Amino acid sequence: MVPLPPTLSRFLSRYAMAVDAFISDHVRGMPEQLYAAGLHLIRAGGKRLRPAVVLLFARALGGVESEHRAVPLAAAVELFHNFTLIHDDIMDEDETRRGVPTTHVVYGRDMAILAGDLLHAEAFRAVYRGLEYGLEPEVVAKAAGVLAWAAKRVSEGQALDMAFEGRWDVTVKDYLDMIYLKTGALIEASAALGSLAAMGDEGYVEAARQYGRLVGVAFQIRDDYLGVYGDPAKTGKPVYSDLRRGKKTILVLHALQALPRERAERLRSILGNPAASEEELAEAAELIRESGAVEYAMGLAREMAENAQRLLDDLPVDDSTAAEALRELALFSVERER
Amino acid sequence: MVPLPPTLSRFLSRYAMAVDAFISDHVRGMPEQLYAAGLHLIRAGGKRLRPAVVLLFARALGGVESEHRAVPLAAAVELFHNFTLIHDDIMDEDETRRGVPTTHVVYGRDMAILAGDLLHAEAFRAVYRGLEYGLEPEVVAKAAGVLAWAAKRVSEGQALDMAFEGRWDVTVKDYLDMIYLKTGALIEASAALGSLAAMGDEGYVEAARQYGRLVGVAFQIRDDYLGVYGDPAKTGKPVYSDLRRGKKTILVLHALQALPRERAERLRSILGNPAASEEELAEAAELIRESGAVEYAMGLAREMAENAQRLLDDLPVDDSTAAEALRELALFSVERER
Repeated sequence: MVPLPPTLSRFLSRYAMAVDAFISDHVRGMPEQLYAAGLHLIRAGGKRLRPAVVLLFARALGGVESEHRAVPLAAAVELFHNFTLIHDDIMDEDETRRGVPTTHVVYGRDMAILAGDLLHAEAFRAVYRGLEYGLEPEVVAKAAGVLAWAAKRVSEGQALDMAFEGRWDVTVKDYLDMIYLKTGALIEASAALGSLAAMGDEGYVEAARQYGRLVGVAFQIRDDYLGVYGDPAKTGKPVYSDLRRGKKTILVLHALQALPRERAERLRSILGNPAASEEELAEAAELIRESGAVEYAMGLAREMAENAQRLLDDLPVDDSTAAEALRELALFSVERER
Repeated sequence: MVPLPPTLSRFLSRYAMAVDAFISDHVRGMPEQLYAAGLHLIRAGGKRLRPAVVLLFARALGGVESEHRAVPLAAAVELFHNFTLIHDDIMDEDETRRGVPTTHVVYGRDMAILAGDLLHAEAFRAVYRGLEYGLEPEVVAKAAGVLAWAAKRVSEGQALDMAFEGRWDVTVKDYLDMIYLKTGALIEASAALGSLAAMGDEGYVEAARQYGRLVGVAFQIRDDYLGVYGDPAKTGKPVYSDLRRGKKTILVLHALQALPRERAERLRSILGNPAASEEELAEAAELIRESGAVEYAMGLAREMAENAQRLLDDLPVDDSTAAEALRELALFSVERER
């Protein structure tokens, strides 16, 4: 079990409380069922890593006052993330997440679509509320632009991910571009929002964005690893569902290229076959491992995390503890088991 | 055939061009299918009444320069509206709109969910682009807040609308509250955005909001009327689908109260029965008419439209032609046949 790094860990629990408090204060209304559906996954847990990126950048670059001002932006990112989870689960027909039944399983498809739409709206409403937390109107306007930009990218990434399921000509580069859109862009936006709140100038926003981009892509590579080799008791998600659905993860793409022809054919025959047995899926996971794909993918992810760490060296850091937590977060994103 | 009022008509065609040009310039990206799905209904037509409310208020209160600055906000409202149409059509299982097959019929359910999410994001991105059109950061920040507020209200309205389908204890007041959320809030937001762009002070924004609220509710009452008595060749929507689904429109609610018991029972037995024949649905439409519900509902809608018109008298009008078009728009919203 990889423990949470010590400095990050202290921030994470405090930030989770602040963000959850903001969300329960602000995300209210009628009818009750709509709000219950919207908050279902948020209440089930989650690491709150994205809001932590917002708040750590705000604090690292601007100190505790910036950190406070950034709370609505951190909540916005978490709300937005949960909106995408609800809709993705409908599209992917996933039935379990964070160890609980997904929103559409509990509340039905239509209410889940609507609950996602509500959180999407609440995310922008949270940005707007930044005005009450002392963010300048210019920062709020830019923050809305950053979140909307990420929202556009995330839709594109999800559309590509779905399109890839039916294709066999996807390259590792296609995959990396796709996960950048689907996962990297929101973590990039989180970093940008945090440094905007610190009112760091555009140059620092750009370095923060680059950190977010690298950590985001590395995080998603680890996610794909955990989808095959993770422990469902820790991840809260069923194992092998990506393999059953024929998701073109970096592991699969590398294995199909690296394995001798016959074994690659065997792997291909199992992937995306909804009738594949548990034994066959375990065999596919074994074929992927023997291809060297795990070393390849995790090596790439670790390199990205290290590059992200190096980017922090050039930032004009105001709070070195927060910067240390960002260093830990980069590494944690590729070592985590949940 | 009720013709478009002359002054409004001149503005509408020019505004539709400006908004459509903004949308095709800004709503671009890959994969192609996602953007094609997102633009499907927008390309199929529509009256562009909501952006006209934005631009007419901007012009009426601030002249042609404000009108120009408000174009991104007008586009935002149209993008947002089309997002809600795409998702509503999935939930309501509607197959035709604006005379074409709905988005999920053409592109499949998952792509339609995503296309709606994309337009939701693009709406906020359009607001942000207001900065490039010369809107002050403070106006852009407030505009994002107004749109997010409306987005929250619209989700609530749609959730209530769905909940009402299974209930028989809905009152006319419940109905009016619901359509305010579902339709009125976005037209209210349109009016607020236009007057914000004109940088009218808060008092005028409030009067504009009230106009939007009244016109929005009146517009929806007319919509419910057209859903039963409209000509599908003009509305672009199939007739009677609200009756078949048992939607609790003001017509239905009034008829159930006003009809003698036996006839009310007969009406109730047809409503929400998916197996009801065309003859039975026509009979239901006739029962509603003989109850006096049409006079009641359209009388109420007309009263709201006239109250909305009166609100314009107190505004500090800069461009009286635009104010005249807003007067016409209020009345048109309750007289329109499409």
